[in-house]
Amino acid sequence: MEKLSVAVVGAMGAVGTQMLATLEKSTLPYTEVIPLDASKNKGKTVLFKGEPLVVKTAEKRAFRGIDIALFSAGEGASLALAPIAVEEGTVVIDNSNAFRMEPWVPLVVPEVNPEAAQQHKGLIANPNCSTIQMLVALKPLHDRFKIKRIVVSTYQAVSGSGLPAIEELNNQITAYTGGQKIPVNIYPHQIALNVLPHIDSFLDNGYTKEEMKMLNETRKILGDPDIMVAPTAARVPVLRCHSEAINIETEKPLPDISTIRAILDQAPGVKVMDNPANNVYPMPIYCQDTGKTFVGRIRKDFTVGNGLNMWVVADNLLKGAALNAVQIAELLVEKNWLKGV
Amino acid sequence: MEKLSVAVVGAMGAVGTQMLATLEKSTLPYTEVIPLDASKNKGKTVLFKGEPLVVKTAEKRAFRGIDIALFSAGEGASLALAPIAVEEGTVVIDNSNAFRMEPWVPLVVPEVNPEAAQQHKGLIANPNCSTIQMLVALKPLHDRFKIKRIVVSTYQAVSGSGLPAIEELNNQITAYTGGQKIPVNIYPHQIALNVLPHIDSFLDNGYTKEEMKMLNETRKILGDPDIMVAPTAARVPVLRCHSEAINIETEKPLPDISTIRAILDQAPGVKVMDNPANNVYPMPIYCQDTGKTFVGRIRKDFTVGNGLNMWVVADNLLKGAALNAVQIAELLVEKNWLKGV
Repeated sequence: MEKLSVAVVGAMGAVGTQMLATLEKSTLPYTEVIPLDASKNKGKTVLFKGEPLVVKTAEKRAFRGIDIALFSAGEGASLALAPIAVEEGTVVIDNSNAFRMEPWVPLVVPEVNPEAAQQHKGLIANPNCSTIQMLVALKPLHDRFKIKRIVVSTYQAVSGSGLPAIEELNNQITAYTGGQKIPVNIYPHQIALNVLPHIDSFLDNGYTKEEMKMLNETRKILGDPDIMVAPTAARVPVLRCHSEAINIETEKPLPDISTIRAILDQAPGVKVMDNPANNVYPMPIYCQDTGKTFVGRIRKDFTVGNGLNMWVVADNLLKGAALNAVQIAELLVEKNWLKGV
Repeated sequence: MEKLSVAVVGAMGAVGTQMLATLEKSTLPYTEVIPLDASKNKGKTVLFKGEPLVVKTAEKRAFRGIDIALFSAGEGASLALAPIAVEEGTVVIDNSNAFRMEPWVPLVVPEVNPEAAQQHKGLIANPNCSTIQMLVALKPLHDRFKIKRIVVSTYQAVSGSGLPAIEELNNQITAYTGGQKIPVNIYPHQIALNVLPHIDSFLDNGYTKEEMKMLNETRKILGDPDIMVAPTAARVPVLRCHSEAINIETEKPLPDISTIRAILDQAPGVKVMDNPANNVYPMPIYCQDTGKTFVGRIRKDFTVGNGLNMWVVADNLLKGAALNAVQIAELLVEKNWLKGV
């Protein structure tokens, strides 16, 4: 490939920053990386491999000559600009919720359903962060034992809501420490020293959009319209990395725990961290800035025929967003799938 | 009753402090309240109804003439002193894990199985905090629809580990705010800005003691040896109030959500807080210092025949400990069950 021009849309956001950091370490043979953001940030610079890159406005003409655009500027920006970029011949990898459930848009986790990426028509969607890490951990078990039902409770970090939410948690902690009134701007309630069983907006069925994503995206990514997911999504006062308590029921009998550990540890993208006797299990503070999905607390659930519990943690900004998007780009280039169908 | 002497064992601890505060507001017709604690705290004072009470050493002779002793000084203290107190004729209500599963010891949540208290032989156990709030919320549904299986994930506050853990979280937050090294003394890992999937010690089956309590105590309290509980217990950086994501499957069909809300709201000890459209759901910071068990996010689980999800929050130091113990004492006096069988 003579030239590969990659743009990051939303380059100054929480995920965009990680997209640039991930591109720095990527094997993607780019010849150019272009940071795009809202017009108010035009002319500002971001550091890339130690050099300042000037941020350009994310607008129609910005996509001319761009081969791949990684979008993470929110649903509105994706809805407005992704179709324009696609028209310009750019392959869009979109981190927002805008197109995920569109039948013509592949929804891809490279460790789980890489083949789906080949079918793209210019746009590939990056799944929701909570779904990605759940499926990286469950795919090796689903392949072997067929998962029928998942009951999952999430413990999600504030960075999933972007840089303002990180700032909010930090501000609230500082106010608490100083005995001051705690400022509440980003979430409907204080998040410091609290838990909010509320991520994204509520639907008529009582679930949040975040929770329904975990069902709908799981079915699409696994290509299994029958798999059941009963989710509860909650926000906890953690900066980075989502944790998930996952309970599964499989069709086929499960082997012993050491075999399950071995299966998971050999699976792509998974790292087993499961030595409770020595207090070793996945936790947000130790999984930050890594690309793996960590699995621990693996134990049989004796309350159903073939049941298993596990605890899964991954960096929501990396595997849950930026890294997954870059991995999709790497996959397209490696397999020569950039042109799509 | 001419005289009712009540002792609080562990009066200077996190739960003991709340026991005294709860006794202040209680209808229990005590004529005397005696704070007992470790010998190192002998002679210190605690405030009770605005007056200082001198702390005495919790030891054998301290129980002479005491009618009811509320124990919350840890398993070791309960094992050492509760049998002695019982021998002295004191009725012990023990908040520790020491005697809960003893067949001769009633394990009582007054809203759930008050009748069990009548059978006491001088000692009644207070259940584990996570179990109490789960069962206050589930009992009205179990009575009507028979719960077959519960999958529960907890989000537990540090106060469940006592005053040193509250101090630890505060110290860690202060250190984080000041950019200092975060001190780790109480838990095996940092709890500030983190989640620990680890409460109490690990057993050979991969579960923690805390998790197994939620199964075993549930069966004992409900008198239902067949009910299934698949638990995951995790600690979150919250000072007070445990949250629980609860998924249940019932034998009988469930009515619509508004009927379920009405059933729960009329149940003793329960307060429904479930108006997601207005961002109303139970959260730790708003449930602190209250005696109710708050239930929200009530929604059908469509992945099984008769499934339901809910989010349950209660003050672990009050309904999860001190208040439940005082309510047991009130029950004994009210029903004239102090003498036992």
